[in-house]
Amino acid sequence: MLKYQPVDEVFKALGDPTRRDLVERLSGGPATVSQLARPLDMSLSAVVQHLTVLESCGVVRSEKVGRSRTCRLEPVGLRLAEDWFAGQRALWDRRLDRLGEVLAAATLEERK
Amino acid sequence: MLKYQPVDEVFKALGDPTRRDLVERLSGGPATVSQLARPLDMSLSAVVQHLTVLESCGVVRSEKVGRSRTCRLEPVGLRLAEDWFAGQRALWDRRLDRLGEVLAAATLEERK
Repeated sequence: MLKYQPVDEVFKALGDPTRRDLVERLSGGPATVSQLARPLDMSLSAVVQHLTVLESCGVVRSEKVGRSRTCRLEPVGLRLAEDWFAGQRALWDRRLDRLGEVLAAATLEERK
Repeated sequence: MLKYQPVDEVFKALGDPTRRDLVERLSGGPATVSQLARPLDMSLSAVVQHLTVLESCGVVRSEKVGRSRTCRLEPVGLRLAEDWFAGQRALWDRRLDRLGEVLAAATLEERK
């Protein structure tokens, strides 16, 4: 079995539409838990649970000021997952380049 | 609750280091199930299970020719998740642009 990696939790956290919605809204700027909960058709405690998942994998951080808790995106967490995609994209592009070279060589060979 | 979206399963599938390893190796080109299983320290049936998860969310497709099954990446599946990141990145960049404008305006105001 391959070893657990921190990015595992980021991907798992993003595999839920409510959590992606929270991330999308926090991309627009910080918000309090009650602001985040308002448009969602679920209990406040369910929203807090989703935010806890996002916080524990480093995608969100929160700070309590007085009686309200403000959440903001933590770019480091999302970057872990984004970087994985960038790595895959690079592998794909290299492979397409190689295919391009093979096709170009084949065309050249045909013309001879 | 927000509605289930196909990208949910893609993110969940990628939240496992073995499945990401399979995707990474398939980024280099198609491979048979036994080629994919060879370096992994797990049973062939465990590998097949991981590949089934990747196939059911549209990240991998496979084809049986004779006695061996060849797997290849299906770009559409991964693109769902990649596009979500691109959307987030765009939101972030717009927000940074706005912050830049606010800072520039504040600097201008200070100079007056």
